[in-house]
Amino acid sequence: MAQEKKLVEAITSMEEDFAQWYTDVVKKAELIEYSSIKGCMIIRPYGYAIWENIQKQLDADFKATGVENVYMPLFIPESLLQKEKDHVEGFAPEVAWVTHGGNEKLQERLCVRPTSETLFCDFYSNIIHSYRDLPKLYNQWCSVVRWEKTTRPFLRSTELLWQEGHTAHATAEEAEERTIQMLNVYADFCENVLAIPMIKGKKSEKERFAGAESTYTIEALMHDGKALQSGTSHNFGDGFARAFDIQYTDKNNKLQYVHQTSWGVSTRIIGAIIMVHGDNNGLVLPPRIAPIQAMIIPINQKKEGVLDKAYEIKEKFSSYRVKVDDSDKSPGWKFSEQEMRGIPIRIEIGPKDIEKNQAVIVRRDTREKIFVSLDEIVNKVDEILKNMQADMLKKARDHRDSHTYVAKDMKEFEHIIEEKPGFIKAMWCMDEACEMEIKDRTGATSRCMPFEQEHLDDNCVCCGKPAKVMAYWGKAY
Amino acid sequence: MAQEKKLVEAITSMEEDFAQWYTDVVKKAELIEYSSIKGCMIIRPYGYAIWENIQKQLDADFKATGVENVYMPLFIPESLLQKEKDHVEGFAPEVAWVTHGGNEKLQERLCVRPTSETLFCDFYSNIIHSYRDLPKLYNQWCSVVRWEKTTRPFLRSTELLWQEGHTAHATAEEAEERTIQMLNVYADFCENVLAIPMIKGKKSEKERFAGAESTYTIEALMHDGKALQSGTSHNFGDGFARAFDIQYTDKNNKLQYVHQTSWGVSTRIIGAIIMVHGDNNGLVLPPRIAPIQAMIIPINQKKEGVLDKAYEIKEKFSSYRVKVDDSDKSPGWKFSEQEMRGIPIRIEIGPKDIEKNQAVIVRRDTREKIFVSLDEIVNKVDEILKNMQADMLKKARDHRDSHTYVAKDMKEFEHIIEEKPGFIKAMWCMDEACEMEIKDRTGATSRCMPFEQEHLDDNCVCCGKPAKVMAYWGKAY
Repeated sequence: MAQEKKLVEAITSMEEDFAQWYTDVVKKAELIEYSSIKGCMIIRPYGYAIWENIQKQLDADFKATGVENVYMPLFIPESLLQKEKDHVEGFAPEVAWVTHGGNEKLQERLCVRPTSETLFCDFYSNIIHSYRDLPKLYNQWCSVVRWEKTTRPFLRSTELLWQEGHTAHATAEEAEERTIQMLNVYADFCENVLAIPMIKGKKSEKERFAGAESTYTIEALMHDGKALQSGTSHNFGDGFARAFDIQYTDKNNKLQYVHQTSWGVSTRIIGAIIMVHGDNNGLVLPPRIAPIQAMIIPINQKKEGVLDKAYEIKEKFSSYRVKVDDSDKSPGWKFSEQEMRGIPIRIEIGPKDIEKNQAVIVRRDTREKIFVSLDEIVNKVDEILKNMQADMLKKARDHRDSHTYVAKDMKEFEHIIEEKPGFIKAMWCMDEACEMEIKDRTGATSRCMPFEQEHLDDNCVCCGKPAKVMAYWGKAY
Repeated sequence: MAQEKKLVEAITSMEEDFAQWYTDVVKKAELIEYSSIKGCMIIRPYGYAIWENIQKQLDADFKATGVENVYMPLFIPESLLQKEKDHVEGFAPEVAWVTHGGNEKLQERLCVRPTSETLFCDFYSNIIHSYRDLPKLYNQWCSVVRWEKTTRPFLRSTELLWQEGHTAHATAEEAEERTIQMLNVYADFCENVLAIPMIKGKKSEKERFAGAESTYTIEALMHDGKALQSGTSHNFGDGFARAFDIQYTDKNNKLQYVHQTSWGVSTRIIGAIIMVHGDNNGLVLPPRIAPIQAMIIPINQKKEGVLDKAYEIKEKFSSYRVKVDDSDKSPGWKFSEQEMRGIPIRIEIGPKDIEKNQAVIVRRDTREKIFVSLDEIVNKVDEILKNMQADMLKKARDHRDSHTYVAKDMKEFEHIIEEKPGFIKAMWCMDEACEMEIKDRTGATSRCMPFEQEHLDDNCVCCGKPAKVMAYWGKAY
């Protein structure tokens, strides 16, 4: 029992210190290990298995819309990065520079890609000639590097894993359509697979991507009331095409610039899963993304027949990821581990259960105990996992909705920020001055101008002049 | 017809200039595009789809042996790289150095990983404590960078994609067993999936990996008679464990060093597929690895019913990767493209075929034409693809065997190297001096000391002293 106690004691409670709780969970659930390079983490097997499940499902979603995968170089020559003015200003201050190859100094510095717009543009300018070559719908899964000053596992790290889609289209309309389409792919994936409801909207001018005409975002609310930008989709118009001279001959034999998009989701999303669903016993994983969906834990496993029965139950499951914990740890220790790792359900099976031809199923999210006949266990597990997936989404949505407030003036705004962490909906004149003032006074940033607009008031929450839009605001990771 | 002619003319024939043929194929089949960074290639969708198929199948093979995937940082601090003497000597001269992050000079240089032994060792020294923590069977799919002077697509490039497995074991026996096990996984995959027969064996001391106790290799013979090292598996003994202090407490409560292995296969293997199976019409892909296994090409597709029938045929295939080429190019152009891209079979369907309820199947490797009733097309395609997979392996094996020679003295050796490109089997005393002399005089290197030994002669082919082993020799990529 000493061991169990240690495991449980080792997690700080959310209420006591949310940041420490988060750090404890990523370490104790063995998602990551710190490395000897500042801000670079090691993604351990359990963390990586979550990422593999995300990749597998998102990749299939991308391919269903016609996207193809490619691989672009890790390095960008300095001169290439500089071709698009806004872009270089946005990224140059935070890139890693390679200056030597072997023992020789390079003639031109290379940066380790922070994102690959410039490489894709250079590539597209070589392979796009005619309208027949369009659209190009390319994506890559890779790592990128941004020299961050303060880092946190998954949320902000020097190196991160992601996918970056880059498309080129004949018309502005087609590019805008693709930008929104991919944002919807992300939002649907987050809702249906990760059980995280998203606010979809447009970023303000100030918050948009360096070089983009418009940036769209999906924003989620974490358990502590902070927002997390979970994926973005950018419409570049023809800005990059002009900087990189990407032109095609249209059907009338006229030269035209292409219109481009890019969109990305990263390992950051794993941070969202942790902070939306986790509790004081550790991770809670939505069944659809969990590397192990059910852990069978034998009770009194040295007794003859118990382990055999556990394996026999495992064999019944062909379409779920089920494991038997047959290690020599105590059942209590195994329960703690299963809870810490957020495995959606555990199936307890001991000599008394075997006598009664039953097993005990415990749901990770509600800790509800369910006695099930072994004859019906497959259907029952199927039912419980589906309910759990749906309930987790509902719970996350209820939490978000009950932590979304309306502010009509700055007094209200400041009061909410102080007292009630969450999203604030407020009208805005769209002047950057107000956005800056709100940030200075409250620490909240504009999260997005949601697609689903509401008319809360006539006037801007900050300056009182006529409002143009409703925006979501909040403190963010 | 002008277009078709251009496409076909654009490939240099193998017999004329094998190196140029290779370059033409990788470009014209749209496997890669050169980038603006010397030695870094862009892997295009068709090339990347081959890599995805390799990954998918190898990854499943790894996991079936208990291997788990992780992700380690891209960067290695200079001090960490220096911990194992042989290793740093082997790699330091060819790494890319990051010296600046943003605008600041780093206190310690970081190299972009050329391979990740040092990172895994550092990690293992933190997480391995007891015999219960062993074995660790980790792998990662990532890119690595080696500052190469001369580069060729897939074969030798500054950046390459690969997987690197790194394992830690309680005993020397277990490590040796894993080293051989993974070499066999590679060899079986190459034979069964890529239709490339491999010579399995041990590398000489001179050729082994920097820091390894022993290196095993799989060696294939290319169409031009040169050898290609296609995958390696290393046994590190406890050398790295001593350098990085990776110790565990055994069952008797005694501290012990772990024993380690590493093993890798890279995008280089795509070069092998090209150079073993390709012909003067382009790529020839083994069915099991081909991104598209059959291309349906409608003849006279503007005639009513033809395209519909093509799609109808496609719908019959659920377990094969089948596409319809419904572009507005001519059938002849489409045939050339299908051949250039090495798509295993094409299915021609035109108005006359529809009348006769048949289609024409053409095998890419033999160009054999087969008339098939549409009622039997699924079974027939299945049969043809299976035959083609088997025939391609047989053809590659026959080519290798008929280009494998025996040399008993240096005169014979030199004659064969001059006149008959291929593998040379010869006895060896195992002195490095002879290995060096052979290389100086002939350009051939020792490829491996094969597991399947033969006694060809009593004496070393070079010095004439008693031989200890039979080795394979050859000029290599």
